[in-house]
Amino acid sequence: MSAGDLVKNAADREVPVTVNGRESVPFMGVGKFRPEGRKAAPPVATCADYPSDGNKLVDDLETALRKCSLRDGMTLSTHHHFRNGDLVANALFDAAARIGVKDLVWFPSASFPCHAEQLKHLESGVIHHIEGSMNGPLGDYCTRGKMKGLGVLRSHGGRYQAVQDGEVHIDIAVIAAPAADPFGNANGVMGDSACGLLGFALADSQYADRVIVVTDNVVPFPCVPWQIQGNHIDFVVEMDRVGDPEKIVSGTTRVTKSPDRLLIAEYVARFVRDAGIMRDGFSFQAGAGGTALAFAIYLKEMMKDAGVRARFIRGGSTKYLVEMLEEGMTDYILDGQTFDLEGVRSMRENPNHVDTSPFTSYNYHGKGNFAGIVDAVVLGATEVGVDFSANVVTHSDGKLLHGIGGWQNCLFSKCTILAIPSFRDRIPVLVDRVTTLVGPGELIDVVITERGIAVNPHRTDLLDALKGSDLPVRPIGEIKEEVESICGGAPAPPVLDDDVVAVIKWVDGTVIDSVRRLAPGSP
Amino acid sequence: MSAGDLVKNAADREVPVTVNGRESVPFMGVGKFRPEGRKAAPPVATCADYPSDGNKLVDDLETALRKCSLRDGMTLSTHHHFRNGDLVANALFDAAARIGVKDLVWFPSASFPCHAEQLKHLESGVIHHIEGSMNGPLGDYCTRGKMKGLGVLRSHGGRYQAVQDGEVHIDIAVIAAPAADPFGNANGVMGDSACGLLGFALADSQYADRVIVVTDNVVPFPCVPWQIQGNHIDFVVEMDRVGDPEKIVSGTTRVTKSPDRLLIAEYVARFVRDAGIMRDGFSFQAGAGGTALAFAIYLKEMMKDAGVRARFIRGGSTKYLVEMLEEGMTDYILDGQTFDLEGVRSMRENPNHVDTSPFTSYNYHGKGNFAGIVDAVVLGATEVGVDFSANVVTHSDGKLLHGIGGWQNCLFSKCTILAIPSFRDRIPVLVDRVTTLVGPGELIDVVITERGIAVNPHRTDLLDALKGSDLPVRPIGEIKEEVESICGGAPAPPVLDDDVVAVIKWVDGTVIDSVRRLAPGSP
Repeated sequence: MSAGDLVKNAADREVPVTVNGRESVPFMGVGKFRPEGRKAAPPVATCADYPSDGNKLVDDLETALRKCSLRDGMTLSTHHHFRNGDLVANALFDAAARIGVKDLVWFPSASFPCHAEQLKHLESGVIHHIEGSMNGPLGDYCTRGKMKGLGVLRSHGGRYQAVQDGEVHIDIAVIAAPAADPFGNANGVMGDSACGLLGFALADSQYADRVIVVTDNVVPFPCVPWQIQGNHIDFVVEMDRVGDPEKIVSGTTRVTKSPDRLLIAEYVARFVRDAGIMRDGFSFQAGAGGTALAFAIYLKEMMKDAGVRARFIRGGSTKYLVEMLEEGMTDYILDGQTFDLEGVRSMRENPNHVDTSPFTSYNYHGKGNFAGIVDAVVLGATEVGVDFSANVVTHSDGKLLHGIGGWQNCLFSKCTILAIPSFRDRIPVLVDRVTTLVGPGELIDVVITERGIAVNPHRTDLLDALKGSDLPVRPIGEIKEEVESICGGAPAPPVLDDDVVAVIKWVDGTVIDSVRRLAPGSP
Repeated sequence: MSAGDLVKNAADREVPVTVNGRESVPFMGVGKFRPEGRKAAPPVATCADYPSDGNKLVDDLETALRKCSLRDGMTLSTHHHFRNGDLVANALFDAAARIGVKDLVWFPSASFPCHAEQLKHLESGVIHHIEGSMNGPLGDYCTRGKMKGLGVLRSHGGRYQAVQDGEVHIDIAVIAAPAADPFGNANGVMGDSACGLLGFALADSQYADRVIVVTDNVVPFPCVPWQIQGNHIDFVVEMDRVGDPEKIVSGTTRVTKSPDRLLIAEYVARFVRDAGIMRDGFSFQAGAGGTALAFAIYLKEMMKDAGVRARFIRGGSTKYLVEMLEEGMTDYILDGQTFDLEGVRSMRENPNHVDTSPFTSYNYHGKGNFAGIVDAVVLGATEVGVDFSANVVTHSDGKLLHGIGGWQNCLFSKCTILAIPSFRDRIPVLVDRVTTLVGPGELIDVVITERGIAVNPHRTDLLDALKGSDLPVRPIGEIKEEVESICGGAPAPPVLDDDVVAVIKWVDGTVIDSVRRLAPGSP
């Protein structure tokens, strides 16, 4: 688990030069690292090896894994389209344990509390380490230094980049799908387990040596839309249930009732309006948290009042965004995932509700991506530094509890807004130096709290645009001091030892920071 | 232009072992060649090199070519979505001539008579040779041995395979699109030049080093649907017109009025019915020729009479197929291209009218493709041998006048039917040995002429199914003899010399046959 030598990167963070036996490049600054060489090249297949009638169904997951020649040390990938309702990742490693293989690398697009069952496979040696987000119990396990390899956290776009660039070679990808045909075409919009779309598995389908589709809903060819193309698929497996529908998407997404968070949401909407971003043909992205939902509702009213219509809204969709689409307030919703059942319905029915993927939206090693085209994005953070840099993976106590998601990728929008409470549980969110650096301050334009709005000084254009606005624009340091006086000072520093337990990748594959082990005996 | 050493392949055809300086593999039999190695790997790009706001527009094609570092000997690709109305391929090589480069390889997905203007670039040395179909004047030029390199003819699927496998490296792809946004997302369904879809450019967008989108219809981001993804695109160029709408698709597609061809069409429909292929959930593919259209009309009536509904129909779409979709006689149309304006409209409006590509439908070096899933396909041929092998590229006089299209790929359907007149211009179509072998007889199941239906003897299942039918099932040799007695004997053998001027690739990249030079002085 030792990470070997550490070096300071361009963000003044100590990072290992070797990650799980592979040389790593320390972060060099935004846009500074230049990739060399060519993309990963999967083996050339031939139709001669596949059933001539296109029927790739096999009996069960174990059979499929054996046909894929599963062996020790392989990298297996899964996806989080079912979020905390996923039943496939656990079933996969249970099958691997029955087959008797060891030292696998689990490469999920994200993990959730439902994956706590994987702890037994980490303990027994079936799984060597996890490359991917580690929420809740898995994050705790990793932060305590119990995992055999280093955790590697990547953004959604960084995960695509890593696979595309050959930094991560997937031996076997297992794609759970709400609907699939026997050829392997699959989608997320049909059936009892409908979750919206399957874009997080795109890279895996394109680049893995072997790809298995697992579904509880086999439909006759063609399964339309084919969000995952059967031409990439080796085997199709039918299971009783691939996900727990109750937990896949929530039937209702809840707007915050907290007065502070409602105030933050209102500030964000007013900022977007008053800074001149809210104009005909504009675009924005917000998440599905309570504050983000409230923001969307405030903004919608302001758009109506001003007679402004958006060209597109980036999801994850919720019923609030779907309403805007159906009321003609935006031409399109571009979704990377879907957060409620209304979003799934709209995606199934409305051709102006368009699928995106980490390739189109977030891959930094492409010929551009969509992130930079978005006029404003509203994000959260666990900590924000006075230099506007931010953390989304650890808390101030040092525990690794969240994945990066699309957060890093979204920072490239034309105006990146962090909408955060100034403190949580009496612990300030504004700090001198973030525990873990996930996003460089130069990419974060505005920090909006219930106590005021801090604009990054390098965005003089935004400061100029806000002249005359009655919004409470304040220096970030001033807000921080006020919060510390309320909370009784800055957060206590975490008690960590020197060992690195995980690394945080930047969108270009370089290492932007490390996560240290919690000192023994930490709560 | 000399092809060097020739060897006999598994189909008893002499083929060169070197094609344009590259070692080639002689045809080894259907499903016998095993590809090795990995797919082609394009260079890794980085967003740092592309405009942060996603705007990739440059002034004109010449500017874009210079930015792509166009130089001598490069391979440039174009596509035939506009068919005989294409204005971009000629403009491209005119621009290359102005820049002053030489010895380019033109790699079109197909060429048409409108491309006769390229002859001057072949003469002047701007174009070294053409890899792709050569219809009309270009075919004549090639067959007379005037081209500097060997012509290489591939099927649509074979073209995808060659690019994917790295057999053809595209330096610069130029994709003409009826609609595109400044990021490079593009489609074929919107605008004055709407042609349906852009799937023939898919491989080029994925694998070329540099990709230029040319359009006469720039729309604001996002251009939806994005049949071509902007994340593959380097530059976007606006032109006055990319295609001549009159010639892109025909407003009306004409059903044959010839009594013989109507009889053939009726026989084909009755065969599909009587052999038990026409059953609930079945699928079929037919082209847009007069006979194929008539077949679709006959079949539709038979389906209505029997109360049978198809699961899917494979296009090229015509108004006849669109009617079947709209009348609920098929769940889906899966289109690779579109043959009339009704097809374009349906593709734009109807989500059950689904885009396919040479990757999904035809690539033999994938994990299966759609061709084998189709229950029956109706194709044509210029010549058919008594062993059921067939030719679609040359005529019996030896002239290379047609491309392969998807013809070879479609042979993998569950029942391949050639619907052909038994003679044309008093030249028999049934022959002892086809002039150029394009499709092996083992993949051709039925030959249907106005004088009778010949079933390949290895399809005993079809022969059994037809017992009791009143269709005129006859041995192929018997029909051939009858035709020869009408026409005054077999076709005169073409007068060819020993030089090879072009090769015909099989779907797996091996060489199935060669085209010889017409003897000097041939008409």
